[in-house]
Amino acid sequence: MADLSRLALNTATVTQQWSLQDCIAGCARHRITGIDPWRDKLQKMGVAEAAKSIRDNGLRVSGLCRGGMFTGSDAGERYQALDDNRRAVDEAASIGAECLVLVVGGLPKDSRDISGARDQVRDGIAALLDHSRACNVPLAIEPLHPMYAADRACINTLGQANDLCDELGDGVGVAIDVYHVWWDPELKKEIERCGQRILGFHVCDWLVPTRDLLLDRGMMGDGVVNIPQILSWVEQAGYTGLIEVEIFSAKKWWREDADLVLRTVKERFKAYV
Amino acid sequence: MADLSRLALNTATVTQQWSLQDCIAGCARHRITGIDPWRDKLQKMGVAEAAKSIRDNGLRVSGLCRGGMFTGSDAGERYQALDDNRRAVDEAASIGAECLVLVVGGLPKDSRDISGARDQVRDGIAALLDHSRACNVPLAIEPLHPMYAADRACINTLGQANDLCDELGDGVGVAIDVYHVWWDPELKKEIERCGQRILGFHVCDWLVPTRDLLLDRGMMGDGVVNIPQILSWVEQAGYTGLIEVEIFSAKKWWREDADLVLRTVKERFKAYV
Repeated sequence: MADLSRLALNTATVTQQWSLQDCIAGCARHRITGIDPWRDKLQKMGVAEAAKSIRDNGLRVSGLCRGGMFTGSDAGERYQALDDNRRAVDEAASIGAECLVLVVGGLPKDSRDISGARDQVRDGIAALLDHSRACNVPLAIEPLHPMYAADRACINTLGQANDLCDELGDGVGVAIDVYHVWWDPELKKEIERCGQRILGFHVCDWLVPTRDLLLDRGMMGDGVVNIPQILSWVEQAGYTGLIEVEIFSAKKWWREDADLVLRTVKERFKAYV
Repeated sequence: MADLSRLALNTATVTQQWSLQDCIAGCARHRITGIDPWRDKLQKMGVAEAAKSIRDNGLRVSGLCRGGMFTGSDAGERYQALDDNRRAVDEAASIGAECLVLVVGGLPKDSRDISGARDQVRDGIAALLDHSRACNVPLAIEPLHPMYAADRACINTLGQANDLCDELGDGVGVAIDVYHVWWDPELKKEIERCGQRILGFHVCDWLVPTRDLLLDRGMMGDGVVNIPQILSWVEQAGYTGLIEVEIFSAKKWWREDADLVLRTVKERFKAYV
């Protein structure tokens, strides 16, 4: 079982209830060590003020969510995406984020060419690397569940993410979210293959039934994922970093009092992570 | 592009509108060559009567949907499943089905052990093989999309299905449904690996957005799957059999007039398969 001192709050978990200011204060109040803000909340608070508040409250920043969305119908779209990713790197550096999480993008509009989209992702990350390396911000490729292949991320297995890391070299690693990878028969093997390139580890649970493709993630313990087993593989690979809780839950946890959500997160973290 | 003479109707496509009697008559009226009935409709019509009607109308039976669901919480549950699968084999033989499609089952109740569930599937198919071989009914393992790993099928990639076939030997093959596998980066390689063991090929489309995990499949051409590319790989592997259209669509196609659905299926088959 994981030590509570490794818990980090991904702000998406209480996205309907709290601003980034609220999240920082909430982490302090609930003695949660780490935070992973989403960029919309960060920009709303202001990057400099957020950086100061995070520092003042002694929080570690496990990551910044998110860069990516590298795919596009034409060069102009892809250039805009690259430009936005450079700003995301700057923001990550400003708040001392330990990585920039990449949700890489799905198929361009009206495209049926997933292989081409994957090439665009590789080229997009490659083009971002000069800047991210210069800023000392590691890029964390997050393989997303295959049900998001069309509209969010065409990197859908840890094996693919590892292949990309092999190809792209230093400055790139992976973020592993149990929600996206728990089903993968190659998971144990691919986690071993990761070694030191694991930059983030995210937890929640897969509910049965799952009623929405995006916004029906479960609290740890309410679903079918064997989180301690996956964590043990991640730790055997050498990962000692923070463990982020990231739950998109429109009908349940986003409707609860956020302090109750954080208390529940801590209880379930102790019992099911 | 595929020849219309290879089209088969999976009865799930018009499950809300038509009985099996209606489906058989509809195929004859629309000059559709093949049919894949679901067992509930088959049992309602009566196996002997259905067999006669299918024969009288000159239809090929591309498969019977479905056997499987091998996983269970205890030996009793698994024995019941095996027993039901033997009956499914008998039904498939009675109607001259070219294979029995297997949706293998997900996690047993309250289980978080997907690896154990996969072992149960292997053992269940192995136990069925004596009977299915004796009846000359090939078993078609259908890898299901990873979003069904928990509640429907824990075989989620064609690679896994191929591994199972390697292990189990004669009498077992695969059914490939583009809906389940289109996202897989290993797809081309694993289809090549299939060779002669492809027993069925099913088409529909992946919609963007997809609004329901189970019942929001698209008509060919309405989504993002490059069906001709996948079909070309399947044909290069040696498959010359029927091409089944199987669309679960609670909000769209199950609400339309079934003759309109069949006309649309034929048009889209010519244009997008």
